[in-house]
Amino acid sequence: MQTKYLLIIIGLLSNFIGVKAQQIIPSSKLTIQGRAFAKGPDFHRIDTTKYHDLPPAVKKLYTHSAGLFVTFHTNSTKLSIDWETADATLGNNSTPIMSRGFDAYVKEPDGWRFAGVARPHLKNAESSFTMVENMEKTEKEFLLYFPLYKELRSFQLQIDEGATFTPTVQQYDKKIIVYGSSIVHGASASRPGLAYPAKISRNINADVINMGVSGNARMELTVAQMINDMEDVDLIIMDCVPNCSPEQVTERTFAFVQELRKVHSDTPILMMESIIRQIGNYNQEWKKKRHEQNVNFRTEYDRLQAAGYKNLFYLPADHLIGDDYEGTVDGTHPTDVGFERMVKIIQPAIEKILDLR
Amino acid sequence: MQTKYLLIIIGLLSNFIGVKAQQIIPSSKLTIQGRAFAKGPDFHRIDTTKYHDLPPAVKKLYTHSAGLFVTFHTNSTKLSIDWETADATLGNNSTPIMSRGFDAYVKEPDGWRFAGVARPHLKNAESSFTMVENMEKTEKEFLLYFPLYKELRSFQLQIDEGATFTPTVQQYDKKIIVYGSSIVHGASASRPGLAYPAKISRNINADVINMGVSGNARMELTVAQMINDMEDVDLIIMDCVPNCSPEQVTERTFAFVQELRKVHSDTPILMMESIIRQIGNYNQEWKKKRHEQNVNFRTEYDRLQAAGYKNLFYLPADHLIGDDYEGTVDGTHPTDVGFERMVKIIQPAIEKILDLR
Repeated sequence: MQTKYLLIIIGLLSNFIGVKAQQIIPSSKLTIQGRAFAKGPDFHRIDTTKYHDLPPAVKKLYTHSAGLFVTFHTNSTKLSIDWETADATLGNNSTPIMSRGFDAYVKEPDGWRFAGVARPHLKNAESSFTMVENMEKTEKEFLLYFPLYKELRSFQLQIDEGATFTPTVQQYDKKIIVYGSSIVHGASASRPGLAYPAKISRNINADVINMGVSGNARMELTVAQMINDMEDVDLIIMDCVPNCSPEQVTERTFAFVQELRKVHSDTPILMMESIIRQIGNYNQEWKKKRHEQNVNFRTEYDRLQAAGYKNLFYLPADHLIGDDYEGTVDGTHPTDVGFERMVKIIQPAIEKILDLR
Repeated sequence: MQTKYLLIIIGLLSNFIGVKAQQIIPSSKLTIQGRAFAKGPDFHRIDTTKYHDLPPAVKKLYTHSAGLFVTFHTNSTKLSIDWETADATLGNNSTPIMSRGFDAYVKEPDGWRFAGVARPHLKNAESSFTMVENMEKTEKEFLLYFPLYKELRSFQLQIDEGATFTPTVQQYDKKIIVYGSSIVHGASASRPGLAYPAKISRNINADVINMGVSGNARMELTVAQMINDMEDVDLIIMDCVPNCSPEQVTERTFAFVQELRKVHSDTPILMMESIIRQIGNYNQEWKKKRHEQNVNFRTEYDRLQAAGYKNLFYLPADHLIGDDYEGTVDGTHPTDVGFERMVKIIQPAIEKILDLR
């Protein structure tokens, strides 16, 4: 009896304050894309349990949902999301939207257009946010990128009651694996869709798999073996130099490529130098380290070529984040400006290798 | 006796773990610049106690240290900072470095070059950070921008023991007042020096005063009276449209300019439209609001001209943050990409008005 009255009061209040009934879409209705393998545990990028030798830090980083996304059609006038991340911790050099939030795009004749973001709660692992509202009641296809720097535990969408909803699956022309550091992982783009693998994916309609492992891209052979289990790969990008000491570059590069060639015998491999870290503008040790990283990487590239390895491509660091020293947030991690400049150089290189032009 | 042994042990430990003695530079040794008035309480932008009618939110926002900076010469190989902000709260659409940290630049023949940042502690109001180390022991001039979105309570620098230290004062060719919204205030540049007033300041050697009051730039007459107390002003920029309702734009613009003209009788005034908010890509209410804000602002500009007011300039929103819908973090606040694009349009407009070309 009491419950009945409570429900009536809630109903009256809802009308009064303009709360409309909503339709809940559980994440299980959607197909997660952007993964190297079709399936994975929850919202992890890779099921690393198969790869015993992976360093624990690498395993943990592949639980981050970087590069994952879902797409769907709806004519809802409002799109909201409830979600939970593993915890509520943040970085001091990046936006909470990038690390723990979402961004949404709508498909237009000329590509995906930004629609809104989901801003995370700053103290709770659980968040709720309305990404877009007051939309025209027309059918649109939405793309939703997942948080880059956090394990996503769960999410559900909210749309208008009575709105249409159809999950979709994107078809891509090419599949590109990008293995690398925090820069691949997405730090410090301002939102998930502005990490450089995601930008290139939208620009050239390629399934660009984000294998960035912040601070931990050190070319372990197990990583190469994991890439070897990936199918239908059109290009492998190695942007891992920033996380390797100059000595590791020398010790590991040749063996890593050699391992990749055991399965990907002819897949193009693009070997990228480390961006020129602006922290080395005045820090002489950083300047020296970065220089040696790239010099050693070039030496290994030359050795690989001399050893007869084909279809290897090399991208020098020159101009990668621009020449005005203003492409990073902290001297190391590109901002959207840095990423925009990187894409302007990396994308034409990819198009040339894959003959997309 | 015990203290003596403790000091000996600390001394031995310090040598052992490589801690070098440091020289402390209290902030009182430095001249704070970037302020509209020569003096202010602590690190506030403006002493608002004189302006009784200012809304409390505006008063509070002028306690934020946005746009303030210090410069100095030193040959230290390391530059560290300890500082305290009013509290440790953060925004969900911006980096902690921008809101609560510092960035450092070094003067080079072609301008100021990025050197490093001070990353704030995420939970404590007090932070410590080494901005640059391992520098050559040569004399350099440093520029240090203060946090944009927080009241700075105190800071002190740490340099090598025995290093030189000389505070400097920058001389500027022009003085520009920029009154506006969160976009002027600096959200969501990745670090303080990338707010658009700071970027333009470095580019054209102008003292560009950041009068951004996030969410609260509503053209109160008291604000105009405050600007009227500022001396030697070469240009006043009004980038306040984003915070005014379309009705407020109509009600307040004419009177605001009229008030400014009581003192700044011939100072050029650049009236800027609101950037085209990407949150209005699909949100029809936002799209309509933004359109009306700008249409009404243009009407007021025309009315002012018809009424005989001279030396007024108008900057339309077209292309201000680019045309690819990717210049903001959240549909409202420009990222470094948005700011870079804004500067490419605003700066030439300023140069033309001030005849700097």
